[in-house]
Amino acid sequence: MSKHLLSLRELDRGEIIALLDRASSYDEAIDLRQRLAGIGVCTLFFEPSTRTRLSFQRAAQRLGADVLGFEAATSSTTKGETALDTFKNIEAMGVRGFIVRHRENGAVAALAEQAEPGTALINAGDGRHQHPTQGLLDMLTIRDWKGGDFSQLRVAIIGDIRHSRVARSDLVALEKLGVTDIRACGPAGLLPDDNTLSACSMVTDDLDAALRDADVVMTLRLQRERMEDGLVDSLDSYHRDFGITTQRLRLAQEDAIVMHPGPMNRGVEISDEVADGPQSVILWQVANGVKVRIAVLERALG
Amino acid sequence: MSKHLLSLRELDRGEIIALLDRASSYDEAIDLRQRLAGIGVCTLFFEPSTRTRLSFQRAAQRLGADVLGFEAATSSTTKGETALDTFKNIEAMGVRGFIVRHRENGAVAALAEQAEPGTALINAGDGRHQHPTQGLLDMLTIRDWKGGDFSQLRVAIIGDIRHSRVARSDLVALEKLGVTDIRACGPAGLLPDDNTLSACSMVTDDLDAALRDADVVMTLRLQRERMEDGLVDSLDSYHRDFGITTQRLRLAQEDAIVMHPGPMNRGVEISDEVADGPQSVILWQVANGVKVRIAVLERALG
Amino acid sequence: MSKHLLSLRELDRGEIIALLDRASSYDEAIDLRQRLAGIGVCTLFFEPSTRTRLSFQRAAQRLGADVLGFEAATSSTTKGETALDTFKNIEAMGVRGFIVRHRENGAVAALAEQAEPGTALINAGDGRHQHPTQGLLDMLTIRDWKGGDFSQLRVAIIGDIRHSRVARSDLVALEKLGVTDIRACGPAGLLPDDNTLSACSMVTDDLDAALRDADVVMTLRLQRERMEDGLVDSLDSYHRDFGITTQRLRLAQEDAIVMHPGPMNRGVEISDEVADGPQSVILWQVANGVKVRIAVLERALG
Repeated sequence: MSKHLLSLRELDRGEIIALLDRASSYDEAIDLRQRLAGIGVCTLFFEPSTRTRLSFQRAAQRLGADVLGFEAATSSTTKGETALDTFKNIEAMGVRGFIVRHRENGAVAALAEQAEPGTALINAGDGRHQHPTQGLLDMLTIRDWKGGDFSQLRVAIIGDIRHSRVARSDLVALEKLGVTDIRACGPAGLLPDDNTLSACSMVTDDLDAALRDADVVMTLRLQRERMEDGLVDSLDSYHRDFGITTQRLRLAQEDAIVMHPGPMNRGVEISDEVADGPQSVILWQVANGVKVRIAVLERALG
Repeated sequence: MSKHLLSLRELDRGEIIALLDRASSYDEAIDLRQRLAGIGVCTLFFEPSTRTRLSFQRAAQRLGADVLGFEAATSSTTKGETALDTFKNIEAMGVRGFIVRHRENGAVAALAEQAEPGTALINAGDGRHQHPTQGLLDMLTIRDWKGGDFSQLRVAIIGDIRHSRVARSDLVALEKLGVTDIRACGPAGLLPDDNTLSACSMVTDDLDAALRDADVVMTLRLQRERMEDGLVDSLDSYHRDFGITTQRLRLAQEDAIVMHPGPMNRGVEISDEVADGPQSVILWQVANGVKVRIAVLERALG
Repeated sequence: MSKHLLSLRELDRGEIIALLDRASSYDEAIDLRQRLAGIGVCTLFFEPSTRTRLSFQRAAQRLGADVLGFEAATSSTTKGETALDTFKNIEAMGVRGFIVRHRENGAVAALAEQAEPGTALINAGDGRHQHPTQGLLDMLTIRDWKGGDFSQLRVAIIGDIRHSRVARSDLVALEKLGVTDIRACGPAGLLPDDNTLSACSMVTDDLDAALRDADVVMTLRLQRERMEDGLVDSLDSYHRDFGITTQRLRLAQEDAIVMHPGPMNRGVEISDEVADGPQSVILWQVANGVKVRIAVLERALG
């Protein structure tokens, strides 16, 4: 079995739970620096990202790994080199772990097919396809706050699901963990036209319906380019119809948690009051991100 | 008491001297790598800088810390995220020390107010306000060359004081260390219109008067934008009126030292002969910069 | 004798072989992290490069050194600071090793003249002049595949030799190691007009003649700017006349190896079939690059 992590589809329920358990054990006080000491890890980003890159870099540091950073904007890809040649070159330098982001669906899996046996690739986001460590950190966050039985949870996913690899990874994970009441909500133009929502019990553009009695509210980042694409009328109307506000949140369970993958557009998909309010677990997600990535790196290279 | 370092105003004379003493002890031959081993430190730069960032990074490396780098130009701030959200996110990743530069006065203090108890922020320059480690390294340099009694020193600060956080930090430190003869010199348009110069015994646009018998000559970088702002006629006229040349320097004490925070505009605020001459302590300042930053990081996180 | 490495001209045959022997010993399983532990090394790149920078960075990591990165594009050189001032500043921070790339011939040697006694500079490419570690890694690759007796080898160097510091370093090394049958081949406009080819037994624009019975085929990157310069008619015609294809390669020895310094223009100087074929040792070169750079760093700073 490959040690790559390309999509949560390739993991079964038991493997997901094992990763969450492992991630939970990485208290900041524990010194993990001998685990991957001297191992070379590269953040290979063909699409820019700050927070995901830093989170993986922190995870690799905690494991004592040596990190090399590659970003396409400052690289030989501008000299016409292919992503595959770039990958194979850095692999030949003795780097064993690759954290890869690419704007094309399936691009990371394509690189993984060309990897040497000792090399492991971790998908840090490919196009609209998958972002498996985000899916795992979201599941860990839900488990931390709602307990280990996912089967009775009501989960609302709100916003631009169509373009979101976060939503796709979350949906795969939620289904594998046994969630049956999943509501997908967004304007028609931002809902997927493929089978992404097959596990959802509700698909709607009615935010109130989606939020009612929800235990978990996952809101997604709205990319401003969607206005230019004509998929959203205005940021104001989006906020009115799909923004999570204190008032709106009262429809959900009293102890519902609000999640966001970041970076947030405050005042668009989420209000300041909710983002900074008592139900927000957004920074908890960030902290779990490092833990989950430590677990994934250790699984891949340990 | 907070472990942040936001401004030299918050330190008393004894604390400043304790930091200088500690900095003096960090010979390059001493291995400090266990001091902050495994601790995460982030250079959080919302305004670009090379030398300050590298100096802090080197200081953190000597202490064995793990460094993450964030620069606004390549970050999610371009995706509309606030500086506060960026900070809180990286803090949630388990990073304990932040070295922050921002173009707005007071921005670092504003972030520090939102920090968790275990987090320490070091101001690496905020607008025109403060750059405390530069102030400390300048004091250490003066002490190395002129001894521990600051009370009899004559110090001339030359150039664009109005826009300089370096000058503001130096002025605070000089006053706290007991310097009473401080001369501020620059063209009228580059002198501050606030109370920055309250501790100065002379404020003048006459360079000769400012330099006469000085023990310490601190010259400041002239930003070329000041010409576009109409605050400086031409670089040539600036050099003629405020540039430190060998000839001009003869007005100061024979053993006067010449300082510059870098990067230098050779031929503008300082001539090549002075920059590379026997009275220049400019590279000594740079070496002290690392020592002072080690001391400040250890105070904050040790 | 200086510990700098500025050009292979400064090394004699015995020193080159000693470096290759040392490089050969650095198996990935060997832990070298105590060799340069705590030593500061800076990649000082006044011209961008990804692969050379990453290769040196990986070499420094394997030795346990602390790496600082400087790239001119994001630096104070944009504030008008000279390369010398930048170098002297980072040197004053306690950095002992500098890996320097610059677009001007001789620029690295000029910096080395101003270095402190304990500081070592390694030329990572200066203009069209030298790229000594590339020369060494190419020699190591030839030795790995063709054995230690260079005197009977037939070596063809194909492409833009005029603008190539790689070719110049290879030519110096090949001559020092005793190769007498060296063929230089390229369009007239891309052959050097200086004495670079004095050691060559053949200078030609006839690719077939250059390849006949060759043991080693070194092809060079064609920079697309050469078309704009009028030195190359079109990429298609270049590929037809000077591109290494499977068919063309049949003229060389059956066990000839094909080398390329990267990044490749596939379909221009080399076909996909050859680049990925059994005679290609291009990724072997990359792996040797790290080994050679470990050897050079250890020689400089160990």
